[in-house]
Amino acid sequence: MSRVLITGAGGFVGARLARHLLKQARPDAPIQLTLTDQFALPPDLQNDARVVAVQGALVDQAALFSSGFDQVYHLASAVSGECEIDFELGLRSNLDSTRVLLEGLRKAGNRPRLVFSSSIAVYGPDPGLAMPAVVADDSLPAPQTSYGTHKLMCEYFIADYTRKGYLDGRSARLMTVVVRPGKPNGAASSFFSGIIREPLAGQEAVCPVDLTVAHPVASPQSTVLSLSALMQASREQLKRRLAINLPAVNVTVAHMLDTLEKVAGKKALSLVRFERDERIAAIVANWPRAASSDTAHHTLKMVGDASFEAIVQQYIDDMRQSGLSDTALKGLA
Amino acid sequence: MSRVLITGAGGFVGARLARHLLKQARPDAPIQLTLTDQFALPPDLQNDARVVAVQGALVDQAALFSSGFDQVYHLASAVSGECEIDFELGLRSNLDSTRVLLEGLRKAGNRPRLVFSSSIAVYGPDPGLAMPAVVADDSLPAPQTSYGTHKLMCEYFIADYTRKGYLDGRSARLMTVVVRPGKPNGAASSFFSGIIREPLAGQEAVCPVDLTVAHPVASPQSTVLSLSALMQASREQLKRRLAINLPAVNVTVAHMLDTLEKVAGKKALSLVRFERDERIAAIVANWPRAASSDTAHHTLKMVGDASFEAIVQQYIDDMRQSGLSDTALKGLA
Repeated sequence: MSRVLITGAGGFVGARLARHLLKQARPDAPIQLTLTDQFALPPDLQNDARVVAVQGALVDQAALFSSGFDQVYHLASAVSGECEIDFELGLRSNLDSTRVLLEGLRKAGNRPRLVFSSSIAVYGPDPGLAMPAVVADDSLPAPQTSYGTHKLMCEYFIADYTRKGYLDGRSARLMTVVVRPGKPNGAASSFFSGIIREPLAGQEAVCPVDLTVAHPVASPQSTVLSLSALMQASREQLKRRLAINLPAVNVTVAHMLDTLEKVAGKKALSLVRFERDERIAAIVANWPRAASSDTAHHTLKMVGDASFEAIVQQYIDDMRQSGLSDTALKGLA
Repeated sequence: MSRVLITGAGGFVGARLARHLLKQARPDAPIQLTLTDQFALPPDLQNDARVVAVQGALVDQAALFSSGFDQVYHLASAVSGECEIDFELGLRSNLDSTRVLLEGLRKAGNRPRLVFSSSIAVYGPDPGLAMPAVVADDSLPAPQTSYGTHKLMCEYFIADYTRKGYLDGRSARLMTVVVRPGKPNGAASSFFSGIIREPLAGQEAVCPVDLTVAHPVASPQSTVLSLSALMQASREQLKRRLAINLPAVNVTVAHMLDTLEKVAGKKALSLVRFERDERIAAIVANWPRAASSDTAHHTLKMVGDASFEAIVQQYIDDMRQSGLSDTALKGLA
């Protein structure tokens, strides 16, 4: 039986990944999925006989981590906006908790495979170079948030644990995942989902940056499939390149809103109100405007999303399948 | 009065820096130098009225660090070879102790200036790129030792504390410092000094790598002057480039030994014996073969060493001035 751990499994990407892995598992290759989160898991996961749910802070789970997992998806993280406001939260939740995890896995001694959810927030403008127009796998990181700094530190930490043979790690630099369901969260990137999600629900959305802002995004499904593909990749395929950009769709806010209008009509578009937020705008200004994903596409054959329209359509399909059309798609023409 | 802290001040570079700062201090700008080390300081430093000596491990000195320094040189470090053998030593001595220092300085609240001694060990061969023939300030780091990994993590950590306004930090990527006096140490680079120092003393030296090995080096005096210059550099001069290569002389082992012969004669050269050490050779193979130092030279006007011969001559002059000629220069023709 394969023992798989997902940290942050109560989160949006984590829960979707858990469902994907449970669905994919073949009867002849049974899986035991340990799902940790500081909050309670969604009921469908809690009630699956193959799931072991562990609620609490990662820093308290050293004994669990050293209990012998085969595969670990480390997704738990405080988000960028929160960590800019609360410096110690970032230290604790993103740096210390990763160290507790890595040390537990090292002590287990079975060299588990590990996929770490890093972020394009590791990139930023480098004064000697300026930020490249498109950040590539081998662009020089220069994080401009504590969130991005701690993600990058963890990447290098994981690469060293891997070099030493304590585990077999790889880091996925996630694009901003859109369209997130539910409510806005503390991430500075939260509006990238909000300006699509709220109008589709017939509600007003505030866009804190202007139309020219450009950014690489990916759908939840693309992100989950990419994380799973990175876990399957062999060390030979990866060579020593242990941190890669996941597939991205490079968009501007203008293109996102054009797509909203195309899919949901003029009325939906009119629900987006521009109200500049200097704090958010300053964070976003230091993020990459576009990303390339050569290792992901060419070496690892990840597919990614076809277009931003396909990403919006995925959200609509998800809402319909979840029976949430009445509220979530109220604004759909 | 200016309050200056040097960590690792009992070490070779630290003690030399301390003496330099004490010598430079003008009567109208008095200095108080707090010198910490796990070992006792040299007597001349211990006996200077301007010196406060603190012996012990950095991780226990949180209260000291938050006591309000104006300038901090953070040089304390376990060395590369040791950290490859003892993983937890590196975590504790190079990562945890830096964090205790940074948190102390943050809590002090007076935004001290900080110079961190990082290393060219942050560079390594990147599989997607291969290592550049010459590593520059903006080359992509890819450390291949725990030592280099932890140094790089600390660089990014310091950049984030600086961005947040908790301190005004900058990281100096030190070249391998030669010629170190005294005995070989646990650093994998120890032989770069040994193959000059031992023959000059009329003693046999073992070279664990072959003649074609190339490496960037710097003299102790150049290193101390560069560290001091980096402390003086304004934020405007640095822009946001917070980690730079110090000036380097790019040499090969062959050129080093040619210089030894030129300065000390054939007999001194004959004392170098080649005996390959696979552990050392493997570490060195992943280090840069040459470095450039554009920011150091062009922006900060650091001078560096004129040649490898000048570096050897500096060591000879040092030994003469210290009255150690009889033993240290026994092999000099």
